[in-house]
Amino acid sequence: MTTRPLPPFARIVEGLPATVPFVGPEQQERDRGRPFAARIGANESVFGPSPRAVEAIARAAQDAWMYGDPSTYDLRGALAAELGVEPANLVIGEGIDGLLGLTVRLFANPGDVVVTSAGAYPTFNYHVAGFGARLVTVPYRGDAEDPEALAAAAREHGARLVYLANPDNPMGSWHGATGVERLIDALPEGCVLCLDEAYVEFAPAGTAPALDVADPRVIRFRTFSKAHGLAGLRVGYAIAEARLAAGFERIRNHFGVGRVAQAGAVAALADRGHLARVVAEVEASRAEIARIAAANGLAVLPSATNFVAIDCGGDGALARAVLRGLVARDVFVRMPGVAPLDRCIRVSCGRTHDLALLEAALPAALAEARAALR
Amino acid sequence: MTTRPLPPFARIVEGLPATVPFVGPEQQERDRGRPFAARIGANESVFGPSPRAVEAIARAAQDAWMYGDPSTYDLRGALAAELGVEPANLVIGEGIDGLLGLTVRLFANPGDVVVTSAGAYPTFNYHVAGFGARLVTVPYRGDAEDPEALAAAAREHGARLVYLANPDNPMGSWHGATGVERLIDALPEGCVLCLDEAYVEFAPAGTAPALDVADPRVIRFRTFSKAHGLAGLRVGYAIAEARLAAGFERIRNHFGVGRVAQAGAVAALADRGHLARVVAEVEASRAEIARIAAANGLAVLPSATNFVAIDCGGDGALARAVLRGLVARDVFVRMPGVAPLDRCIRVSCGRTHDLALLEAALPAALAEARAALR
Repeated sequence: MTTRPLPPFARIVEGLPATVPFVGPEQQERDRGRPFAARIGANESVFGPSPRAVEAIARAAQDAWMYGDPSTYDLRGALAAELGVEPANLVIGEGIDGLLGLTVRLFANPGDVVVTSAGAYPTFNYHVAGFGARLVTVPYRGDAEDPEALAAAAREHGARLVYLANPDNPMGSWHGATGVERLIDALPEGCVLCLDEAYVEFAPAGTAPALDVADPRVIRFRTFSKAHGLAGLRVGYAIAEARLAAGFERIRNHFGVGRVAQAGAVAALADRGHLARVVAEVEASRAEIARIAAANGLAVLPSATNFVAIDCGGDGALARAVLRGLVARDVFVRMPGVAPLDRCIRVSCGRTHDLALLEAALPAALAEARAALR
Repeated sequence: MTTRPLPPFARIVEGLPATVPFVGPEQQERDRGRPFAARIGANESVFGPSPRAVEAIARAAQDAWMYGDPSTYDLRGALAAELGVEPANLVIGEGIDGLLGLTVRLFANPGDVVVTSAGAYPTFNYHVAGFGARLVTVPYRGDAEDPEALAAAAREHGARLVYLANPDNPMGSWHGATGVERLIDALPEGCVLCLDEAYVEFAPAGTAPALDVADPRVIRFRTFSKAHGLAGLRVGYAIAEARLAAGFERIRNHFGVGRVAQAGAVAALADRGHLARVVAEVEASRAEIARIAAANGLAVLPSATNFVAIDCGGDGALARAVLRGLVARDVFVRMPGVAPLDRCIRVSCGRTHDLALLEAALPAALAEARAALR
């Protein structure tokens, strides 16, 4: 048998890494040979989706033989009413991840510069590389993304896109609306801010700038995966000036968000009571994580999200060892990848029993980590 | 208030049409102001999904707060066992549509040539344009895609990709496995055949070439949207040589197929009885569509799919008028877009009452169309 030559990949693809950092907790469980007892590592909403969404999904399952409406009319209509914008300002996509990929494709030619913070959302960087654009990073300032440095880098390099998560992932920090507005005003002409507001429902009032869909300098990204507890459906949305939103129509996977996902998202949006309960649970959980950290002599960073960064009090090696100790004790958590952010582990908000497992595991994980690095 | 300048789109996007041809039946219903009575236009499986899949979706809804496994381990494992390939030969994506987009991106540089048949699947062409590749088309031969012409065009233009749907959409025709194998052998070196087998479960034995995952010259695309009746979940899969399958890892939306969709697909795959019943229903329905056509003096094309092309006996103008008459009578059907294929309307298989509505509407639609064009 002769081995046939492999067809060549396109030039951009040829230059991409062969492995990617998307390892889910399920893969870790298979590698470990046993499940996690607490799943508090991926900033999922362990408090669950609205019962109305669960019911809507089950009902839609009967109709799953039909494609979803490619124009996502009902969902865009419901979101538009909720947000006080027009349906033409909304783009529904396969999670914020999918929409970020489309956004890079929409604005960045190969070689164009895109700016983000070193240590911010890696999936955005994955898409920037994936379309052959050039990533320029600026450091965090303290534990927050640095709007002034982002704007300065954008001006210096004539960037097409700037990424800012507000509130931030992985640190949980946030800027007030005026800080974000200053960033927008400081961008060079023709540059678009990708404002990732995945966690905005958990943030203090005044974190998100008022929606101004006449402004083509910013596209905002929100999701049903976090506060709405529907990560398993994959529905995100972008809020954009109408001509920019229309641009997505030229390239998106029009049937990519199915009927079942659309139905679940519409039902979730209608259940404001559930959302309020989840936000309250998250607040209580953040306080509980802080208490557990303090009982172990550790500080937490202030958080405007559904997770809390615990400062392990050393460097990245120490935090990585603590994380390994927690994972070995069946507590799934994650951590930032870049120094000095990586002195922290990142713990998603959990129910009482999830956090009890964290509380039980942390002292030994910490002691082990300190002993190993002494 | 000053109007801010619009940021420029990337060069490829700038050149794309501002409108796209993805109009779902829901949009038609909104435009008409009333719902369709028979939804037999989008080749959906009106016979529905497996009750086991419906149950699995409802169960997974409870867990929808968790992201889906990005490695789609269970689904790839189940498919691998079913198909007799390795999980490393499988790529799960947001429908065949999504996977076709990734495939174009994987292999075609801007300006590279991609070959398809004029009148074949428009979404493939949408992706070719979307990534700046150059589409070359060859005509159908009779009512079937023409493998020899496809291969000749690929050799002439040094194509990177060739698209063939087998069985074909929109005509329902098909080639035997040896015809497809001859096409693969006739491709120029480095060219990949995108073999769209969305309808393969409905085709006679011997339509699909044996799976040879050592062969990097072909990538095959299948779906849960047709025979499995799960169009509303959007789960498709590609079968490819392992290094090609690994290439998708560099660019795909890793969390794009959610937990709920994965659970539904796994359950559907396990219900062979349901699949067999649907295939039998489709066979009976094809015969019934042929009977209805014959009763109106019309011929149907042989079909290896879950739809039937009815030859309206004239040109495109006549068929379009017949289609309008059916739509006006609340029967949703579609038709090919390119002459001479557009002498036909395309009717998806339906239940007894769906086809009774077709039978009731067709005589008047036909008479009206003939009168209008006399």
